[in-house]
Amino acid sequence: MSTMTIAKKYVELCRNNQNHTALETLFSPDVVSVEAGAPPGASKEVRGLKAVVEKGKQWMEAHEVHSGRVEGPWPHDDRFIVRFSYDVTNKPSGQRFQMEEAALLTVENDKIVREEFFYSTEG
Amino acid sequence: MSTMTIAKKYVELCRNNQNHTALETLFSPDVVSVEAGAPPGASKEVRGLKAVVEKGKQWMEAHEVHSGRVEGPWPHDDRFIVRFSYDVTNKPSGQRFQMEEAALLTVENDKIVREEFFYSTEG
Repeated sequence: MSTMTIAKKYVELCRNNQNHTALETLFSPDVVSVEAGAPPGASKEVRGLKAVVEKGKQWMEAHEVHSGRVEGPWPHDDRFIVRFSYDVTNKPSGQRFQMEEAALLTVENDKIVREEFFYSTEG
Repeated sequence: MSTMTIAKKYVELCRNNQNHTALETLFSPDVVSVEAGAPPGASKEVRGLKAVVEKGKQWMEAHEVHSGRVEGPWPHDDRFIVRFSYDVTNKPSGQRFQMEEAALLTVENDKIVREEFFYSTEG
């Protein structure tokens, strides 16, 4: 599969809120997931599909998603960029906010081996 | 300067069609610029600010820009992503098309040292 084929499947699954299926079918068991920022004491980097699935599950449990938009993909060799915009409420705080970010994904041997999230960590 | 400060200046200058000023003030003399695709025989990679300025000049001469949109920046450590959407006409062919791409820029010592453009090269 070309990077663009994988990228299009990824975007389609994310658009249909099937992120879990994307992780199961398109990601390497050894995937590394890197955030732009992390709370004090927490790591920006998570290694392994199991840990990445758990991170996504925790995020979904802590947020109510009112609406979302997934744009792209834009490919370059074995990488591609996707843009995410979400209107969400953080359940613990009750705070509603607009989440704007871009993801840079790297493909190796037909699997996504690295995902890096780009967003502002300024207050 | 933080990466975000440089990123915001970059976006502001691009929005005001001052790409030349962005190159002059924010880029390293040794910047490397990489396209997602290139015509047969041409290189995807251009090295050095002078060559990058020349590449931009040639593109501007070959295209009429009807309107454009610059979104972002989305930062992650010493890199940031910007999205470009342009409505342009290629002058030699007369063909009008929507250009959709994302750029991944890398900052080192307060200068942009690498720009990589992400877009579909499929027909």
